[in-house]
Amino acid sequence: MDTTTPSYNELTQTFTRMYRLQHLQSIASWDQAANMPPRGNEARAAAMAEMGALLHRMRTDPKLGQQLDKAEVEPLTEPQRANLREMRREWRQSNALPESLVHRSHMATARCEHAWRTQRPANDWTGFLGNFREVLAIEREVAEALSQQSGLSRYDALMDRFEPGMTSKVVDAVFGELRTWLPGLIRQVIHKQSRETLLQPQGPFPLPAQRKLCERVIRLLGFDFEGGRLDVSTHPFCGGVPEDVRMTTRFRDDEFLGSLMGTIHETGHGRYEQNRPRELLGQPVSESRSMAIHESQSLSFEMQLGSHPGFVAQLAPLVADAFGAQPAFEPQNLHRLITRVKPGLIRVEADEVTYPAHVIVRYEIERPLIEGEIEAEDIPALWDAKMAELLGMDTRGNFKDGPLQDVHWPSGMFGYFPCYSLGAMYAAQWFAAMRRATPELDARIARGDFAPVFEWLRTNVWTQACRWTTDELVRRASGEPLNPAHFRAHLHARYLT
Amino acid sequence: MDTTTPSYNELTQTFTRMYRLQHLQSIASWDQAANMPPRGNEARAAAMAEMGALLHRMRTDPKLGQQLDKAEVEPLTEPQRANLREMRREWRQSNALPESLVHRSHMATARCEHAWRTQRPANDWTGFLGNFREVLAIEREVAEALSQQSGLSRYDALMDRFEPGMTSKVVDAVFGELRTWLPGLIRQVIHKQSRETLLQPQGPFPLPAQRKLCERVIRLLGFDFEGGRLDVSTHPFCGGVPEDVRMTTRFRDDEFLGSLMGTIHETGHGRYEQNRPRELLGQPVSESRSMAIHESQSLSFEMQLGSHPGFVAQLAPLVADAFGAQPAFEPQNLHRLITRVKPGLIRVEADEVTYPAHVIVRYEIERPLIEGEIEAEDIPALWDAKMAELLGMDTRGNFKDGPLQDVHWPSGMFGYFPCYSLGAMYAAQWFAAMRRATPELDARIARGDFAPVFEWLRTNVWTQACRWTTDELVRRASGEPLNPAHFRAHLHARYLT
Repeated sequence: MDTTTPSYNELTQTFTRMYRLQHLQSIASWDQAANMPPRGNEARAAAMAEMGALLHRMRTDPKLGQQLDKAEVEPLTEPQRANLREMRREWRQSNALPESLVHRSHMATARCEHAWRTQRPANDWTGFLGNFREVLAIEREVAEALSQQSGLSRYDALMDRFEPGMTSKVVDAVFGELRTWLPGLIRQVIHKQSRETLLQPQGPFPLPAQRKLCERVIRLLGFDFEGGRLDVSTHPFCGGVPEDVRMTTRFRDDEFLGSLMGTIHETGHGRYEQNRPRELLGQPVSESRSMAIHESQSLSFEMQLGSHPGFVAQLAPLVADAFGAQPAFEPQNLHRLITRVKPGLIRVEADEVTYPAHVIVRYEIERPLIEGEIEAEDIPALWDAKMAELLGMDTRGNFKDGPLQDVHWPSGMFGYFPCYSLGAMYAAQWFAAMRRATPELDARIARGDFAPVFEWLRTNVWTQACRWTTDELVRRASGEPLNPAHFRAHLHARYLT
Repeated sequence: MDTTTPSYNELTQTFTRMYRLQHLQSIASWDQAANMPPRGNEARAAAMAEMGALLHRMRTDPKLGQQLDKAEVEPLTEPQRANLREMRREWRQSNALPESLVHRSHMATARCEHAWRTQRPANDWTGFLGNFREVLAIEREVAEALSQQSGLSRYDALMDRFEPGMTSKVVDAVFGELRTWLPGLIRQVIHKQSRETLLQPQGPFPLPAQRKLCERVIRLLGFDFEGGRLDVSTHPFCGGVPEDVRMTTRFRDDEFLGSLMGTIHETGHGRYEQNRPRELLGQPVSESRSMAIHESQSLSFEMQLGSHPGFVAQLAPLVADAFGAQPAFEPQNLHRLITRVKPGLIRVEADEVTYPAHVIVRYEIERPLIEGEIEAEDIPALWDAKMAELLGMDTRGNFKDGPLQDVHWPSGMFGYFPCYSLGAMYAAQWFAAMRRATPELDARIARGDFAPVFEWLRTNVWTQACRWTTDELVRRASGEPLNPAHFRAHLHARYLT
């Protein structure tokens, strides 16, 4: 241990301690979703709240702030300085808000989300508004407080919690460009696909066979089962800790592609976590870079690789092996099933072509909502107009499949939605860079050789963790900043040629 | 909240906080055994050690000691005073030993236990002795320190950690009496059973069918699956938290009775945990009373009820339903299988008649070992002599199925072994008391009506938790102190009439 950096050393020890305690919180959270029987809920919530409060006290300990200041003038290496930058970011975030505001936000979102669970199926927009107005008022306060501290605009200050460094100026430009060509592209794709024959797979698809197929595909994708698991939960997610990644999926016996592609998606998250720099785990510099970069990994797996015709050709015999041969499992038909484009009401069920439209609708509503340019009452009319404009859907009066469909707003997660589509754009940008580095990439994927994909992601994203800011990571990995042209080119190549 | 008891109030809050943090530790520990992939081990161990250290700091906070003293003179109710007594017990135990001794004990037992895992299969007594001498020396120091503080003898001070209030004077008397009649009874039972015909069940017994059977029987025994689970682990145990009890078992496809009866055993532990007083959870007075009382619950389920001919008659059709009918599954034959007595080398595989002999052998060696009357080198000769005397077994040279078979000594758990047989005696005493309260008990069990058993245990043991000292609990429940005559009568009635 370097004696010339005593404050930095103490900081690393404190962050390692918090990392270890957070480990228990992560496993308990996974267990809650994957195992916990209903009567365990109250005690679990109390236990996790206690630990949350304890970790918050550690993160906001004034001593930590003093050590951060002292460490700034210690002779640190470049990687240590990057770690210090991320430590300060965590410190700033934890200290940004007065306890009372955090508490009010927690109470309001908990109440709103709890009621939303029954208001959504009841299509009860009016009932929802009552709670949601309070959530919105408090989250505007949160945004204002974060904005005061960071100098960012209010919406950007919220987005910064998920996507550090990203601004609505960039999102405006990127989404603004996207919305000029997306509706036209969707129409073209639908027209092209309407002339293709499509065979539907015949079920049922027994759950044990589905699980075996998923595990086989996950292995093929390099997930390490010695350091992780696949289980079942109502809402699929990737949790646990980097040393023990817990992915979940859900199965229905009348359909298998949703679960299979969802599992491939989670595997992208899982491999990112499994390949964060081992020697630095516990330090903030080893954390995943941001939500959009994380999503760029799941979409690299699900969309770029997993829906690649060469990959699907590899997948087809495994599917036939799992459920018995069917004409629908022929590679070309399977690929058509996986890449079928169909505008719908529900974001989480959307294909990769229509998905950005759902995100744009939400972004174009939540940004002015937080900035105070519109009010909660204005949401339905805006929703209807934008869904009609971008996807040609009539959503009038259908709140449950409209603005009530996502958990984000009732739980106060404003600023998160853009990450989904930024992730899709980064994923396309990664694969463009890969093809420059490995011109025979598509042929190798078609041969079942995915090593160039994994190696590129490992070198350029996974092991880089938080070593650089997001913008610098993207430039180093792909030679340019975020460039949505790659996403457009990807959609064009896959869906219109 | 009562303002006349400020220190007591603060204590209850601190203990509730520790209870909540311990919740995460318990779930992580269950997960480690039931789910965790191998590469998760290092990070999990670090996380649990961090939490262990944190809880230790909370338990040894000097402020807690001051509050305990202040609370003594506050106007407490009787139940509050019982809670304070148990708080002080936890406090004394946590503060009893200097940190350095705790650390040396931890290091020595970890090293010894780790080496033992390979020394046992290699039958390497000499190699084991090298580490075990150090463990013994340190545990004698621990015993001396605890003895100085408590005024108990050294062995009693160790036993007090598991079985508060129990002394070797009582154990000597009880085991001394037991050893006068046990070898003769074993011989009589073997002679009697040798004339019975016994049909062996024909396997294989598919694992899904075994699991379903276990779950069905557990439900029959009143375990609440809304507040608990059954999973698989290498070594069966009952863990989790009272609000979410996690039992485990293991399955082999060539045998089902071991797993089934083991699950019934864990269900006894599980129901005790599920029925500790809800309104007091978090407070020490709500904890289970002791290891022997806990074992009295698992043995009430496995031996007293689960091996009762009336219960086995209820079980028989469920077994046939699970695996298809076989002559071996006829009630009388199934009961003979479950109650078969056969001296063997391994304690954990022993039947209820020979089991106490295994415990006596260990007690009669570990007590003088701790008191310094014998040395580690003396163990094999004593083991051989006692196993020959009590069970007629030749154990010479077979260390792996002899003194190396249990994890207790390598891990420094001296004073635990007596709890197993004390538990068997308490269980027999409970059923004797039940029969006095409900003379038709056996007929009701034979009708599949187990309510009197559950109600008696709930009223007299489960909900009493730590309200009374063990001795007082036993007197209140059964009208007399520990009385091993009930165990002898039980064995006589079941095996010789």
